[in-house]
Amino acid sequence: MGFDRLIKKIKETGNPSVVGLDPKLDYVPEYLFKKFQEDDGATLKTAARAIYAFNKAIIDEIYDIVPAIKPQAAYYEMYGSQGVKALEDTIRYAQLKGMFVITDGKRNDIGATMQAYTAAHLGTVKVGDMEIEPFGSDALTVNGYLGSDGINPLLETCKTRDKGIFVLVKTSNPSSGELQDRLIDGEPLYARMGDLCEQWGADTVGEFGYSAVGAVVGATYPEQLKELRKRLPHTFFLVPGYGAQGGGAEGVAGAFDENGLGGIVNSSRAIMCAYQKEGCNPQEFAKAARREAIRMRDDITQFVKIK
Amino acid sequence: MGFDRLIKKIKETGNPSVVGLDPKLDYVPEYLFKKFQEDDGATLKTAARAIYAFNKAIIDEIYDIVPAIKPQAAYYEMYGSQGVKALEDTIRYAQLKGMFVITDGKRNDIGATMQAYTAAHLGTVKVGDMEIEPFGSDALTVNGYLGSDGINPLLETCKTRDKGIFVLVKTSNPSSGELQDRLIDGEPLYARMGDLCEQWGADTVGEFGYSAVGAVVGATYPEQLKELRKRLPHTFFLVPGYGAQGGGAEGVAGAFDENGLGGIVNSSRAIMCAYQKEGCNPQEFAKAARREAIRMRDDITQFVKIK
Repeated sequence: MGFDRLIKKIKETGNPSVVGLDPKLDYVPEYLFKKFQEDDGATLKTAARAIYAFNKAIIDEIYDIVPAIKPQAAYYEMYGSQGVKALEDTIRYAQLKGMFVITDGKRNDIGATMQAYTAAHLGTVKVGDMEIEPFGSDALTVNGYLGSDGINPLLETCKTRDKGIFVLVKTSNPSSGELQDRLIDGEPLYARMGDLCEQWGADTVGEFGYSAVGAVVGATYPEQLKELRKRLPHTFFLVPGYGAQGGGAEGVAGAFDENGLGGIVNSSRAIMCAYQKEGCNPQEFAKAARREAIRMRDDITQFVKIK
Repeated sequence: MGFDRLIKKIKETGNPSVVGLDPKLDYVPEYLFKKFQEDDGATLKTAARAIYAFNKAIIDEIYDIVPAIKPQAAYYEMYGSQGVKALEDTIRYAQLKGMFVITDGKRNDIGATMQAYTAAHLGTVKVGDMEIEPFGSDALTVNGYLGSDGINPLLETCKTRDKGIFVLVKTSNPSSGELQDRLIDGEPLYARMGDLCEQWGADTVGEFGYSAVGAVVGATYPEQLKELRKRLPHTFFLVPGYGAQGGGAEGVAGAFDENGLGGIVNSSRAIMCAYQKEGCNPQEFAKAARREAIRMRDDITQFVKIK
């Protein structure tokens, strides 16, 4: 309940970071793509197989030192239903290796439709006499613009199946302020959204004091991170924007509580493409990913002491 | 450009409505599901095949009188990558029959990730030497909570490939006001989001005066519909919430301009499940869908005169 499973993994690995698996084909070393192209030609199936092989090799190299992965749904949908199959396979493989999986889908809708998204990503679906888990992720990012009607359908599954959600509160992008910073009764919209997270999560607080309703708060806004950490004591933070987007380790420290808990920091491209930055043999892409994952862990844990 | 293709279809059919294809397995007549179950058992593949057969039969019965379909992504994702394949197939089949397709995915993200969603749903993706269209829909619903960084990546594709988007402005659900009605500088958040739609769409206005950046405005809020129609003269409206959610034909008339254009009204369950409501032979489900589509058209065009 309430991200306890994730927090235990973070304590176990001593690492409050998550590896974003957003595998555009440009990131996949050419030799790997070509191997599959020989079988099926330049098709979406080839792309999907190359991506899954890429993810699998990275997972094999990081599962013992990183608690979680965050596959971004867009990069799988980009290769059609074949790509979506690679998402299914990636989720299952990471879980088999003991990792916690956050599907970054920013899904949102209301009522029965939001129930369908819940069943898809966190729950099960009935087909004839069978109860089948379609994606079976551990957590899902969601967008709360539609209000409680968009969030309530998720909460029952969070409780009964020990799953979590992360609601977009203050996103890492430059234009996030266009709407999120606008004042409502003297307080920014993102703070109001944050308050709703506390409210939505109230019934699902786990042993570490955090609920199953987390929040996405960008590393690029360290002041807001600190402010929201105080304001939302039961809300676990998923923090994108470290590294590539400009968020530094000292800044992200504001996401954490006095026990070094309460947040997890994401890095995607810097880890997936570490082999390009290093200029090492592309065949070593997964080992380069591990080296960057260690560098990131050590960078963050300079400032975040997990107790 | 700017929903001209959709508007021409609306004029041609004399019907400003769209059929939502949200095919939960509960909606599919049992005889149809059983036919596929005999082949593959109770699997996601069986579910997906039954759903596609259901959609195809409905499309065959309505394509000459309804301009567009709106498949809701959640109901396909619910059956995993197999379900997503049924979404691909449904989009292609409807287009083959000359229909305009709006994928209701409410997607949202920023930068390269939003580009990936754009490529997935409205654009193309490069695999080796091939340029492949993954879903190839005509329009996509999106959520603007992240601001311009989430919308700009879509605009280039809207221009170069004659596609459209619908941004959530005022949604049809009871709790939409929790955030969307809150006042920012004296005006509700939804109005601010609406103003952004006018701004985002400014470069893409087509021959009927509407841009490629449409807005979702619920039929359940007729006053706001009327107000937004005046405020956003270049923004085409997708109007959910008619029928099942309580929006009436007289109310939705507020979505339209003096030429009876500027909006399209969605109905999903009432059409898909017309055979249940009618109590007719389930084998006639598609014909019942046609009867309900005609009833809806006639209901709306009492109040909306297309010139």
